Amino acid sequence: MDITALFSISYGVYILSTKYNDEINACVINTAIQVTQEPARVSVTVLKSNYTHDLILKSNQIGISVLGEQASLDMISRFGFQSGRDVNKFADFSYETDILGNPIIKEGCLSTITGKVTQAIDLGTHTLFIADVVDAKTIEQGKSMTYAYYRDLKMGKVKPSTDNDETKAPLNSEADKNGKDIYQCSICHYVYDGDIPFEELPDSYVCPLCNQPKSVFTKQ
Amino acid sequence: MDITALFSISYGVYILSTKYNDEINACVINTAIQVTQEPARVSVTVLKSNYTHDLILKSNQIGISVLGEQASLDMISRFGFQSGRDVNKFADFSYETDILGNPIIKEGCLSTITGKVTQAIDLGTHTLFIADVVDAKTIEQGKSMTYAYYRDLKMGKVKPSTDNDETKAPLNSEADKNGKDIYQCSICHYVYDGDIPFEELPDSYVCPLCNQPKSVFTKQ
Repeated sequence: MDITALFSISYGVYILSTKYNDEINACVINTAIQVTQEPARVSVTVLKSNYTHDLILKSNQIGISVLGEQASLDMISRFGFQSGRDVNKFADFSYETDILGNPIIKEGCLSTITGKVTQAIDLGTHTLFIADVVDAKTIEQGKSMTYAYYRDLKMGKVKPSTDNDETKAPLNSEADKNGKDIYQCSICHYVYDGDIPFEELPDSYVCPLCNQPKSVFTKQ
Repeated sequence: MDITALFSISYGVYILSTKYNDEINACVINTAIQVTQEPARVSVTVLKSNYTHDLILKSNQIGISVLGEQASLDMISRFGFQSGRDVNKFADFSYETDILGNPIIKEGCLSTITGKVTQAIDLGTHTLFIADVVDAKTIEQGKSMTYAYYRDLKMGKVKPSTDNDETKAPLNSEADKNGKDIYQCSICHYVYDGDIPFEELPDSYVCPLCNQPKSVFTKQ
């Protein structure tokens, strides 16, 4: 079985948020899809080790911000790859709330979708949440960020849309903009994006997207 | 609520197939995603009125062919927008079978994924199937066809990759390659793609992707 064949499946990039009592949190996911039209329902699949996952199990409500190609890597990094257990991701960050009180990110986003969770399906490492859409708003027109585009951006293969340069010529860089070596998860293609150099991460580090150990990462 | 905000969610384009006893069938979907890594599992959401849906409920097995940008509209049309109840979609068409006997389409596809269905979740108009991946194969490298790309292709906004022309300049055509007017579903953005001119379709026609009536289609 060639498990890399599954990498050809297409995904977008989303910020998934929730509010439970006085707590808010958000994480980056790539698994939001609309599953029915009547009624409008979406599904999201979330790794159980994410703090946002635990809050959604209690709050039964979600906010989805759909990222456009203009979203910055810094913004994705803020919400994607640190835990809401350890830091307040919304500190010093301007955000709004949707009709259910979920924090909604407008920066770099094309639209927001608000849902009430109706089913939580246990899939072992992840939970698949089905939610009725109770509100949806367009923020701006633009191209949605696909996960393939995000990876190319992170790997330096395309220039950011925020450069105002329409030619997205390959840069073929093997190091990121800070000169650090690039490490990528061989299981899910996630590109490490932390401040600490990858080599200095503890052995207990796991891929924030697929939960695999540090040893499955390869230098690009 | 601005339901069009949901159009910014990203999808790929896939041919979903199955085999039940001596019967094989396939349809086009845009809702395949990988939901867990360990074990590798995928989910697909299928409209209940699709004949392929009924066969999967009985066979509990699926084959997914992931379309690349080089896939032709004619091929998508063959599998997408006619019913296996009325015609044999595989007549005069060369195909292979995967390890479970599901028909696998290689033409225009990047990879194939074979799954055994473990859960079928009833969502009213659709069923969401969860399947353990039992085989996966890469056919060729290339860019996955996104649903946004497919729409642009169908609307004449990009040239087909099969033209061997790397510049995908917008054509800005308001009629398709056969000179017919283009009609699009205002609910799910599906572009009508049949041999019969849209105006001549019976009033009972429904969108093959989202099941909405003919009246929600608008001329582009």
